Amino acid sequence: MLAWSARTWHDRCMPPIHDRILMGPGPSNPYPEVTAALTHPVLGHLDPAFLAVLDETMERLRAVFQTSNPLTLPVSGTGSAGMQAAFVNVVRPGDPVVVGVNGLFGERMCEVAARLGAQVVRVEAPWGEPLDPEQIVHAHRAPAVIALVHAETSTGVENDVAAVGAAKGDALLIADTVTSLGGIPVAVDDWHVDICYGGTQKCLGVPPGLAPLTADATARERFVPRPSSWYLDLTLLSQYVEGKGGTRVYHHTAPVTMINALHAGLGAVLDEGLDAVWARHRECGQLLQAGLEKLGFSLFAAAGHRLPELTTVTVPDDLPKGMDEAGVRAHLLEHYDIEIGGGAGQLAGKVWRIGCMGHTARPRNVLALLGALEELFGR
Amino acid sequence: MLAWSARTWHDRCMPPIHDRILMGPGPSNPYPEVTAALTHPVLGHLDPAFLAVLDETMERLRAVFQTSNPLTLPVSGTGSAGMQAAFVNVVRPGDPVVVGVNGLFGERMCEVAARLGAQVVRVEAPWGEPLDPEQIVHAHRAPAVIALVHAETSTGVENDVAAVGAAKGDALLIADTVTSLGGIPVAVDDWHVDICYGGTQKCLGVPPGLAPLTADATARERFVPRPSSWYLDLTLLSQYVEGKGGTRVYHHTAPVTMINALHAGLGAVLDEGLDAVWARHRECGQLLQAGLEKLGFSLFAAAGHRLPELTTVTVPDDLPKGMDEAGVRAHLLEHYDIEIGGGAGQLAGKVWRIGCMGHTARPRNVLALLGALEELFGR
Repeated sequence: MLAWSARTWHDRCMPPIHDRILMGPGPSNPYPEVTAALTHPVLGHLDPAFLAVLDETMERLRAVFQTSNPLTLPVSGTGSAGMQAAFVNVVRPGDPVVVGVNGLFGERMCEVAARLGAQVVRVEAPWGEPLDPEQIVHAHRAPAVIALVHAETSTGVENDVAAVGAAKGDALLIADTVTSLGGIPVAVDDWHVDICYGGTQKCLGVPPGLAPLTADATARERFVPRPSSWYLDLTLLSQYVEGKGGTRVYHHTAPVTMINALHAGLGAVLDEGLDAVWARHRECGQLLQAGLEKLGFSLFAAAGHRLPELTTVTVPDDLPKGMDEAGVRAHLLEHYDIEIGGGAGQLAGKVWRIGCMGHTARPRNVLALLGALEELFGR
Repeated sequence: MLAWSARTWHDRCMPPIHDRILMGPGPSNPYPEVTAALTHPVLGHLDPAFLAVLDETMERLRAVFQTSNPLTLPVSGTGSAGMQAAFVNVVRPGDPVVVGVNGLFGERMCEVAARLGAQVVRVEAPWGEPLDPEQIVHAHRAPAVIALVHAETSTGVENDVAAVGAAKGDALLIADTVTSLGGIPVAVDDWHVDICYGGTQKCLGVPPGLAPLTADATARERFVPRPSSWYLDLTLLSQYVEGKGGTRVYHHTAPVTMINALHAGLGAVLDEGLDAVWARHRECGQLLQAGLEKLGFSLFAAAGHRLPELTTVTVPDDLPKGMDEAGVRAHLLEHYDIEIGGGAGQLAGKVWRIGCMGHTARPRNVLALLGALEELFGR
């Protein structure tokens, strides 16, 4: 066997522990209730005591998605697994799939759909601008699927999912709410979204690792009977989370600890109340965006379409002496223990992305970052 | 918005907390170091402090897999996601894929491969008996892939992966070590395994949610360039975990909390030492199996091929008055807070599955279960 270097208990159990204010594009800081729930004893995935937690988690997810869909579950993977699950269960080779693209995650939808053999029809808007719902619903005469991202994490722009849902016709509508769920209103039933997925690590204030997903009856009728991914087969997953003939059919071992954490995070969100949580995200976003402009920074996303929970800032020309844009982020991380994100895709090096999501969405965190930027830029 | 029923802080944060001895087929009880690590502050997936933990986790995984493969990573899903990732990255439509089948997880491999268009060649043995390595390597003249399960969780039988690896010829060898990794010897390099995956929730003593996976150079040369699953594309994942040209390329948000937990669990295993951990699992298995026979129970798996960490017991005819086999398990759970598992697949209702894995593999737990069975059965 390979030798393992001698390590002391201290080395193993107490590595240097860093504690940051997480103001990147995700993960955010978890709610304190979530951290507590992570330590609950592990239970078996068929233990009635765990199944009660799972059932309640599904009920709480229905509340934040604003849906009555029975099939509303935490998919056992990160938000991107939610995207993969949404597409693999409904896309058949040759299907026309209309995708709205105004950022990295719209691009990713095209790639995921293309790999499944879809005929992808792209409807683009410049990064930083919103998609045009009219253009999307008229892009193809009979799309099997229309897909778009509600909150583009790469640009900080909100797209109008409701307008697309109102005019989608017979197509299935897939909406990505990874960066909106629990931060700004998401109304799956009212908006006629057929499959909607999110992530835990953004506005829900839970660590990354699960993808909340909901699918309505129309989507279920059109599920591919035996999708190429066994792991993300929603029909099989439904037989565990909903049961089949009164029995829970084992599919894979549910990630019980992360589900406990999600259960607690959703409890925190729902106890505060969705209206109050949305208001808190909105207020923090306004405080941040006004503060940045007051310091002389330019916001990147188009006015009127800016997400409060994810702000993009154009990297200024007058960077602190000796620093490039990555150096600014590294300094914030090392000196202030504050993480902000760099640009992604075509915006790499051009913008910073500042998240204010979940438990991070507190005025104290916004003020700490503004103070750090003021000090660092000498403004 | 949907109304959310009023809940008190106590309801939300302090649901009834159950604490079981987990002696089912997984999850097992986590090592205490793991529970502590779950509470570490969440860090961003590109934070250098987190990347150091990720790098060390990969190094520790290489030690438990006994491999020097650079591409050795925690896949962001449960053990079954490891299976899906292994197959989707190397199976092309029409490929002859030989699968050893002597239990539920061999069956699952056939299903996963078939969905990807493989020409599946099944090599079977009765459930409870080991596979014949000779039969496997001669089942097809030129298989693209040979796959088998090392430790069949449904039957408690160990299959001889080393013998298959020694005679596999030009085929890629995929081995499932979900229920063996960290419990009994697994030697990826010595056994000529090309892709090997495990789970965290068995002998590694970490909650379910990640799939450790390793792939060698031969496998990587044969990776499908653009597999149908974007989420499990190992080439893209390698550009994050290993980096590409010195840069970590973002793919999806790594599940940082579960990776912290895995890091700590692997630390516990490696500090104890693989030899000592294997000896502990062996001794607990022997104590359990001898104790069960002394109480008059019959072991199901063929003698000489029994796993120490997962024991199958034939459900006896003389059940305690008024109980069926599920009733016995429910009583153990409710009265003693001990979980054991029922049979799966063709063994449903016929066997019990008793795990003794990870932190659960302690003599005190074996003695508690034997005492409970003695009391319950009046033996």
